[in-house]
Amino acid sequence: MKVLTSEAAQMLKSADDILILTHQSPDGDTLGSGFAMCRALRSLGKRAQVVCSDPIPHKYSYLWQGLEEQQFTPRFVLAVDVADPKLLGAKLSSYADKVDLCIDHHGSNTRYAEHLLLEECAATCEMIYGIICAMDVELDRAMAEDLYTGISTDTGCFRYSNTTIRTHLIAAKLLELGIDAYAINRAMFEIKSPSFFELRKLALDSIETYFDGHCALMYITYQNMQATSAQQEDLDGLTAIPRQMEGVDIGVVLKEKEPGLWKISVRTGEPYSASQLCAKLGGGGHARAAGCSLTGTADQVRDQMLPVLAEALGVSL
Amino acid sequence: MKVLTSEAAQMLKSADDILILTHQSPDGDTLGSGFAMCRALRSLGKRAQVVCSDPIPHKYSYLWQGLEEQQFTPRFVLAVDVADPKLLGAKLSSYADKVDLCIDHHGSNTRYAEHLLLEECAATCEMIYGIICAMDVELDRAMAEDLYTGISTDTGCFRYSNTTIRTHLIAAKLLELGIDAYAINRAMFEIKSPSFFELRKLALDSIETYFDGHCALMYITYQNMQATSAQQEDLDGLTAIPRQMEGVDIGVVLKEKEPGLWKISVRTGEPYSASQLCAKLGGGGHARAAGCSLTGTADQVRDQMLPVLAEALGVSL
Repeated sequence: MKVLTSEAAQMLKSADDILILTHQSPDGDTLGSGFAMCRALRSLGKRAQVVCSDPIPHKYSYLWQGLEEQQFTPRFVLAVDVADPKLLGAKLSSYADKVDLCIDHHGSNTRYAEHLLLEECAATCEMIYGIICAMDVELDRAMAEDLYTGISTDTGCFRYSNTTIRTHLIAAKLLELGIDAYAINRAMFEIKSPSFFELRKLALDSIETYFDGHCALMYITYQNMQATSAQQEDLDGLTAIPRQMEGVDIGVVLKEKEPGLWKISVRTGEPYSASQLCAKLGGGGHARAAGCSLTGTADQVRDQMLPVLAEALGVSL
Repeated sequence: MKVLTSEAAQMLKSADDILILTHQSPDGDTLGSGFAMCRALRSLGKRAQVVCSDPIPHKYSYLWQGLEEQQFTPRFVLAVDVADPKLLGAKLSSYADKVDLCIDHHGSNTRYAEHLLLEECAATCEMIYGIICAMDVELDRAMAEDLYTGISTDTGCFRYSNTTIRTHLIAAKLLELGIDAYAINRAMFEIKSPSFFELRKLALDSIETYFDGHCALMYITYQNMQATSAQQEDLDGLTAIPRQMEGVDIGVVLKEKEPGLWKISVRTGEPYSASQLCAKLGGGGHARAAGCSLTGTADQVRDQMLPVLAEALGVSL
């Protein structure tokens, strides 16, 4: 059942012993939402605890600074930024049908929770900001840091098209609390591991262009990942690279997840449809960003891609 | 003589045939300021024209869309975002002592203009926004696009520490005019030439770390620039890379401007002083970002740097 912000705020004010579920492979928005809400609930004298199926990457550690772990038997289960119970991950899967309230900004939310607060805005943290206000909790600096983190990471630091007037107005409110937004953005966007640079070098080396430069392919092989000891986070931003090249209409990143098993990401500019292109290879997605899976050697995978790319561009192979 | 926003607005409202000077190697802020002001003045029925010593890079062409060139003998000279008359460049140097009003956000402004409006804010475009409002000009979408461009580029898209509450509030106002901020940010930050990627690959390949990884050096040789046909704009962001590596306290970029002539950029984290370090090599700058010039081969330049770096870090060579 869908609820309004005021209703969600009322439910949370009436609840206690609140377990806050975040999604697996946690990002700034689910964690920022979870910890900001946890702080708000505790400031009302309630017990609240954030949990996640996966270990939380070290760079997010400031989000829960000062929050000690609390042990209790949950009497209210809140999910934040979790569009689908599958995303709760293995450790939290038992809560899939026990979520009292879900607060989420994904249009694709599967309506699994007893109550759902859904807005298609830039970040769940924007919604949490509204609920904290509606709960009459005085926002403090730690909550503001948590919320800013989610908003900044989900908007690519106010760069993406999901950034709205409200996004900037909330950011202004958060800055009023004296947060060090630059330090947050540096931690979120700038600090990179040596593996990140090693992997990027190999990836840039692999770029091939086709069809008069209208299409670019970039490879990240299983061997590249092993050789650089790269982690998932070291892949940040790589998918965008081929399409960033001047003149490229279709950018393709071929990532070998297991030897011979490739995950293909396709990004297109107007008027080329990434989802139609990927559908021909058994995949799907959005108009400008889609994906599919293929098997074989790098050469074999490329040879499967090229005719489909040529067709999409309306050129001959 | 320093003036207030209201006084600057009054001066501009009383003026006509206004020549607007921008700085050489033009960036989003000087151009956004110039063209937004030009549009505002023309909307009041005045003649106004933006000029620059250097050719304006193609990516900025949307900033003056719809503005036709006007020929007139200037009766009022306005400089925007120009901290020093030297920055007017060769073609506009004759105006160095003829500037009636300078609007600028650089604390280092040399006070060369007859009247100066100076605020140390994130972007001159923030100030232009205020003046346009004070002139009672109704902001339109084209002005908003110009102003957003300057604010976004000078703050690294709201990422840098110069971003304030006001910055976000103005951004919200500009978005209210229906601008496509994402398209602007994509043009400003994402689209890169093939040379950009080529040069980045060579630069990443050159990285050397010293002193247990606390220091990283990256080289961009004259030969690299020639080989990749790189332009100035292809250097975007390179200076930041060494300091982005996890564990690096001092990041150094050595750029060979002419064969054997190197411009060194140093970025440091707390507590290391980039300006003190560069002062020892005849340069200077800010606490966290400074520079100097050295001559010799890459090896010779490195050998001049390393003892100074070791001393700064308090370690032995």
